[in-house]
Amino acid sequence: MNYKLEYISRLFQRTSKKRIENYVITRLWHKLDNDDIKMVPQQYVHRQEEKYALTDVYFPQFRIHVEVNEPAHYDSEGRIARDKMRQNQIENNTGHRVFVIDCRESLSGIHNQVDQVINAIQEEHEIQKQKGRFKGWDPNREHNPLYWKSKNIFSIEDEVCLKTIEAICELFGADANKTKRGYLRRGTIAHPKNSNVELWWPSATSRQGWQNSYDEKNQLITETHSDTNVKEDHFRRHFNTKAIRYVFYHYKDVLGFKNYKFKGVFAYDSENSNEEVGTIWKRIGTQIQVEPNEYK
Amino acid sequence: MNYKLEYISRLFQRTSKKRIENYVITRLWHKLDNDDIKMVPQQYVHRQEEKYALTDVYFPQFRIHVEVNEPAHYDSEGRIARDKMRQNQIENNTGHRVFVIDCRESLSGIHNQVDQVINAIQEEHEIQKQKGRFKGWDPNREHNPLYWKSKNIFSIEDEVCLKTIEAICELFGADANKTKRGYLRRGTIAHPKNSNVELWWPSATSRQGWQNSYDEKNQLITETHSDTNVKEDHFRRHFNTKAIRYVFYHYKDVLGFKNYKFKGVFAYDSENSNEEVGTIWKRIGTQIQVEPNEYK
Repeated sequence: MNYKLEYISRLFQRTSKKRIENYVITRLWHKLDNDDIKMVPQQYVHRQEEKYALTDVYFPQFRIHVEVNEPAHYDSEGRIARDKMRQNQIENNTGHRVFVIDCRESLSGIHNQVDQVINAIQEEHEIQKQKGRFKGWDPNREHNPLYWKSKNIFSIEDEVCLKTIEAICELFGADANKTKRGYLRRGTIAHPKNSNVELWWPSATSRQGWQNSYDEKNQLITETHSDTNVKEDHFRRHFNTKAIRYVFYHYKDVLGFKNYKFKGVFAYDSENSNEEVGTIWKRIGTQIQVEPNEYK
Repeated sequence: MNYKLEYISRLFQRTSKKRIENYVITRLWHKLDNDDIKMVPQQYVHRQEEKYALTDVYFPQFRIHVEVNEPAHYDSEGRIARDKMRQNQIENNTGHRVFVIDCRESLSGIHNQVDQVINAIQEEHEIQKQKGRFKGWDPNREHNPLYWKSKNIFSIEDEVCLKTIEAICELFGADANKTKRGYLRRGTIAHPKNSNVELWWPSATSRQGWQNSYDEKNQLITETHSDTNVKEDHFRRHFNTKAIRYVFYHYKDVLGFKNYKFKGVFAYDSENSNEEVGTIWKRIGTQIQVEPNEYK
């Protein structure tokens, strides 16, 4: 199946239990009727301090979020006020726009609200096209290491999603054959031009006893092993290491696609690591320059 | 929730497991963008003799069916030939048009095919409007007994769906109070102007021991009871009866709505009824004239 059809039809399917949200999302896509425009489900956004939110739909090219508020959202003044505060925090913290669809309205009322979102997107699309800034949705490019290599600088906001360990190696010019150990696969490989940097692809699912967990809120990755001996040995070998890791997190996203997604640059967290929980890595950078190799 | 939104969003939800079908159906609705146009899921159509088919979507106002053929439909020459024969039989038997969407195509290929269906519908819509023949989708009318009473003649093709036993009584001017027996409800009531005719609302689900089953293919309704004594007594009382029944079948449709749907005029089936299976009613008419009371 065509990747975009696969992607969008999965996005529709994901909301099939929330009927009005599904109605709004299918309408946004079909009425925009432009497959250069990307829609992202459940976008993670910081609100402030420890708080974050997942918005229903996000249009990354236009920094526009859509929240579909089912009637229950209007049940109490308290809930209405909290929803409003949440919207303001997202807008203030990210500079993005948040459109809220009030589902208490009639069919034509919902249609009008969807039209307003579509107008905002089309206006912004027109401006970007005139300025030559518009970049159409191109999954083949997003997943292509050579594209990011030629771009040279990328950050966590670029949503770099590679599909294989080979692609990660290709991006940095590393030899993918060195990731293989017989039938097994190494979890890291040294950066070919900087021995202090490792390319790492921790997985959300346990692999060969290795257990990694990702704490999105605090940007920490725990690396441990189900076998106590291996775990303690690993902890001792990495104790206070000065090694830096470029992280491509392997996970299945909400649409069921598997990705190695760039999550930033991580270093040893001496405060939280210990023999009990294992080695913990904290994020120290969000952007990589491929050539010459740098991060910030 | 607005009834049309409820209806269409349920229709979308019903196909959420078949992702391409869902994509096509949501696209048809949002691109037509006209809530005067009704879409019906899983339309039952006769092909020939004993054979029938359920088409994926039907536009009753324009007699247009849409079949969304997932790639597996093209796996063998045999299957392709059977699908083609099925399409021809539906078209020949009903005079309706059947559009087939070939899902092996790319996103733009699918869009083009959907556009062709939309063009056909809009063309037919335009013709009907010019001739003053177009009747917009009006659920309030479909469910309103006074509308059908004023129309005076209706047939099974009109998809008469009433919501209550009171509505059935109102349509024929019967006294709904007479359907009540304490806390219980009678299953039939005499037609107020013709003692040989009964209004009957058999249910797809068992009620107070009564078990009815509807054989759509042969247009037979079996009426029986879980208690052997009641069953045999009922059979004897109706043996070779000359009574005629106007049937409003109570069932939950594929979208989860409960209806009393007009299924035609039925009479005792002396060939198939017996003490073992119960009383069987066969369809002898498909159209009713309310005033003066007649059927054919």
